[in-house]
Amino acid sequence: MNDLTSTWSGYVQEVERLLAQTLPAEETYPQVLHEAMRYSTLGGGKRLRALLVMGACAAVGGDVQKTGGLAAAVEMIHAYSLIHDDLPCMDDDDFRRGKPSNHVVYGEAMAVLAGDALLTEAFAELARMPEKYGVSPEVTVRIVGELALGAGSQGMVGGQAVDILSAEHTPDEETLRYIHSRKTGALFKAALRGGALLGGASEEELSAITRYGEWFGLAFQITDDILDEVGDAEQLGKPTGRDQDLGKLTYPRLYGLERSRQMAAECVQLCLQALNGFSERAWLLRELAAFILQRSH
Amino acid sequence: MNDLTSTWSGYVQEVERLLAQTLPAEETYPQVLHEAMRYSTLGGGKRLRALLVMGACAAVGGDVQKTGGLAAAVEMIHAYSLIHDDLPCMDDDDFRRGKPSNHVVYGEAMAVLAGDALLTEAFAELARMPEKYGVSPEVTVRIVGELALGAGSQGMVGGQAVDILSAEHTPDEETLRYIHSRKTGALFKAALRGGALLGGASEEELSAITRYGEWFGLAFQITDDILDEVGDAEQLGKPTGRDQDLGKLTYPRLYGLERSRQMAAECVQLCLQALNGFSERAWLLRELAAFILQRSH
Repeated sequence: MNDLTSTWSGYVQEVERLLAQTLPAEETYPQVLHEAMRYSTLGGGKRLRALLVMGACAAVGGDVQKTGGLAAAVEMIHAYSLIHDDLPCMDDDDFRRGKPSNHVVYGEAMAVLAGDALLTEAFAELARMPEKYGVSPEVTVRIVGELALGAGSQGMVGGQAVDILSAEHTPDEETLRYIHSRKTGALFKAALRGGALLGGASEEELSAITRYGEWFGLAFQITDDILDEVGDAEQLGKPTGRDQDLGKLTYPRLYGLERSRQMAAECVQLCLQALNGFSERAWLLRELAAFILQRSH
Repeated sequence: MNDLTSTWSGYVQEVERLLAQTLPAEETYPQVLHEAMRYSTLGGGKRLRALLVMGACAAVGGDVQKTGGLAAAVEMIHAYSLIHDDLPCMDDDDFRRGKPSNHVVYGEAMAVLAGDALLTEAFAELARMPEKYGVSPEVTVRIVGELALGAGSQGMVGGQAVDILSAEHTPDEETLRYIHSRKTGALFKAALRGGALLGGASEEELSAITRYGEWFGLAFQITDDILDEVGDAEQLGKPTGRDQDLGKLTYPRLYGLERSRQMAAECVQLCLQALNGFSERAWLLRELAAFILQRSH
């Protein structure tokens, strides 16, 4: 019964329900702000980060019923980062997940504020974990720290900052690695570590999950780059690869397509290796790692 | 020895030292981001919110040595809000505390990110309270919740959102009250409640401190409006009152200068009344309330 597709789609619905309940209703004053927050958080997204929370909690034998608050918080942080990344002063993207970006619909000021409020609400939801999900205050505090670290100036925001700063001149490989490991990898890792902590992971399990997260993040980014390149080369008529347009350094540009595919496969192998000591309960994390590779084809 | 001026100036130095230590160093990669974060947080500001934390903790007989983390976090949240408020898409202010705004120095993208990172770092610092300041995890979680509520979509960010939304048409009195109570009042209240919780406040003490905070916020805002108006009327040659320029509704415009001054004095009386049940240990909160009134002259 350990089927990735059905587990995933079931969990997407569950996360959607949780987010819809947790976020202030659209009727709650100030309505436009809450509408903007919900617009960019609900009704879209793979909920990959929420799934990593659940997968890590399950992998260490924890109770996945306790993961709802953290899963919602992680998705809110992800949604906030997309809103701010899309701003005209940042990546200036008018579309996201097939619909107009937040600032296109609500204006720049409201988009900045909706992002700010989502980030803040994420921590509010973490603080509710003891009450709503029976998580101990000790674990709650540790998870607040993990998420703040993953999302902060030496995590996700740091990655976006370096990405912006290096847009003027093509970054070297080390910088590329930094951007990737922080911009997407840091929140993956925080989601995984948070889920493992919720599940009562030992320090040994936690460090294995952390290694998994590092390889997972890299594999994800390489396949992301490949998809951008392949979409470009094979599907003429579609808009040209955005990364290339922006002069961004990508794995295919650095290593070529074939070597990039190999590298992604190697990363996934290292993900699986990191889980060697884990039982069948780590099936979801194993499936998710394998799934990343399928993305590149 | 309970002297407001010397306590205040000593505490300003202490908070400055804490913030300088807590914020990532300018040499820490990515340097520009950390420079931007430090630029808007250090070397300026009255540290009023930090002082409210300390005052509330002292008022309920708590150990003020434990307040450092919360004081730093509150000041980081305040600094982030100023950076985002000053953005061109928001209030479009090029100067702050007598120096160029964050976005003028570092560009809009970095200013958005510096604000995001400061908000995130505030929660990271709260999560360190058990380790650094011996605060219990239970109290830490509660304080995370208080700050997230005060800073979030129905607190500070909500106030800014309504302020932005009502810029097009002069708001009615109810809206004005909402903006004020949220935009500045909510963080005051969170700082006070957080400080009281740190000090081990009873529920009764907590609700008295909350009432104090509500009147304090209103008094502060009224005097702020008065200062804007008075600076305009009495100091010709200086730039015209900014609030009036923006067509913002203010207390003097609504009630006249004299009645506004009366109202501020009444609010301060209600602040002091809220502290009736407190001993001499509430001296700092009493002095701070009285200080607000002096501002208006």
